Amino acid sequence: MNDFLSKLASLMKERNSVICVGLDPAIPNQRDVNVIPKKYMNNDDENEARFNFCLDIIDNIADYAIAVKINEQYMFGMSVRNHLSISNYLKKKDLISIYDCKLGDIADSAESKLHWIHKSGYDGITTNPLPGNLERVVNFAHRYTPRIGIIVVTLMSNPEACKYFIESKYNSDSIYCEIANDVKKYDADGCVVGATKHIDSKEIGNIRRMIGKKRLILFPGIGTQKGDSIKAIKFGGNNILINIGRKIIYSDKPKDSIEKYFDQFKELRKRFY
Amino acid sequence: MNDFLSKLASLMKERNSVICVGLDPAIPNQRDVNVIPKKYMNNDDENEARFNFCLDIIDNIADYAIAVKINEQYMFGMSVRNHLSISNYLKKKDLISIYDCKLGDIADSAESKLHWIHKSGYDGITTNPLPGNLERVVNFAHRYTPRIGIIVVTLMSNPEACKYFIESKYNSDSIYCEIANDVKKYDADGCVVGATKHIDSKEIGNIRRMIGKKRLILFPGIGTQKGDSIKAIKFGGNNILINIGRKIIYSDKPKDSIEKYFDQFKELRKRFY
Repeated sequence: MNDFLSKLASLMKERNSVICVGLDPAIPNQRDVNVIPKKYMNNDDENEARFNFCLDIIDNIADYAIAVKINEQYMFGMSVRNHLSISNYLKKKDLISIYDCKLGDIADSAESKLHWIHKSGYDGITTNPLPGNLERVVNFAHRYTPRIGIIVVTLMSNPEACKYFIESKYNSDSIYCEIANDVKKYDADGCVVGATKHIDSKEIGNIRRMIGKKRLILFPGIGTQKGDSIKAIKFGGNNILINIGRKIIYSDKPKDSIEKYFDQFKELRKRFY
Repeated sequence: MNDFLSKLASLMKERNSVICVGLDPAIPNQRDVNVIPKKYMNNDDENEARFNFCLDIIDNIADYAIAVKINEQYMFGMSVRNHLSISNYLKKKDLISIYDCKLGDIADSAESKLHWIHKSGYDGITTNPLPGNLERVVNFAHRYTPRIGIIVVTLMSNPEACKYFIESKYNSDSIYCEIANDVKKYDADGCVVGATKHIDSKEIGNIRRMIGKKRLILFPGIGTQKGDSIKAIKFGGNNILINIGRKIIYSDKPKDSIEKYFDQFKELRKRFY
């Protein structure tokens, strides 16, 4: 039994939702827009501010989401205790935790990262397939109890992604096809596939066919990146997560914002399934 | 003026060394071999143990190395203060600090990571080119004063790396060639190129030709991964770093171990230049 995927599937059914909330806690001095509110910065402790912001967002989204994706690029310097408290809080709220670290390293180093991921209590991570060692990474991750889910970056949401994922070829097929093949062959748990405009129904359909029905497709790019949720739901199949980050977490009313997406996706899923 | 590369070049000359020491501090409960000595675990604080181990290694290697590469997969949970103390200690010893995080993410997230890298005081980082957005990442990194050096994973040292780096093609050339082209085109600071057995003199020579003489080639894979330092020195050109990790940091006598490499590389460089 695959803990990660079966837990996801049952939550999806139970809560009738495919929403994953992207937690990207940017502190106010790091950029101009999309930063955590000043009220969190009371005592100048940037870890505490990010931590409290994350917990408040989780409270707001827990009734509508089924997963939370925490992006490593925003969590630099957080302690293992911080990570564990966040993942435990997510467990308490019956939400799947995905640590979005795009791990891509030689086997020994990947194994080291998985040691810390396990200690931090996360259910799954994202990985970068470029090193070509997915088989070993999946084996390391699935050795843990419960197994750590491995979701492989297969076709990224940023506009420049076409160059290496689509225009580049392995045995005359686009690289993203070979990545999807590897996901099935080495029994990884799913793919990250952008739902942005350079990725169309053909590519999403290809990936779903190649990885089979049960694996997860995690779609980032909806919301600020203007991805298309209809495309994701229509061609992604049943086992999907649609990630929305900034449009929820930096909204004045995160609960209202996620509720709108929840209703919209429920309607779409009714239409296509 | 490029702070990162000019600082490296002057250190290389001054100290007649191309050694970069790989700091991969694994704690005793995470694997069987190549872990930090038990004496560091006195008070069960894993961050303090890793931190003190790193500082002691730096003391031991400072006379022979010119750079230190800190692998993110072993630093999970360390605070910004820990990172800054390490980078400041390296500055005090006149050593270049490279944070080996293989950053590969959409632009906003990459920008966030660079914010934290800057706060941590590191001179350079490694990046993963798969997202295809190197131009933006370099622009973000070079906006800081001093500029953060960007060293792009171009041909990895692990045995499975051939699949996506060499056998996969962009416009009928191996992907690693296009990555090297991007490094030059977008003015990144260098390439990470394995010196292990699946990478031969032809590929190393290709990369050096494509990126020009002044950029850095950082060679991991010497030592435990059994890479070939003769190949790296003979075909890598003048501006190289040879990274050695486990064979130095987990040796009983790190100072004796690095001294041997120092003498060996000095001889080789005399022979070929």
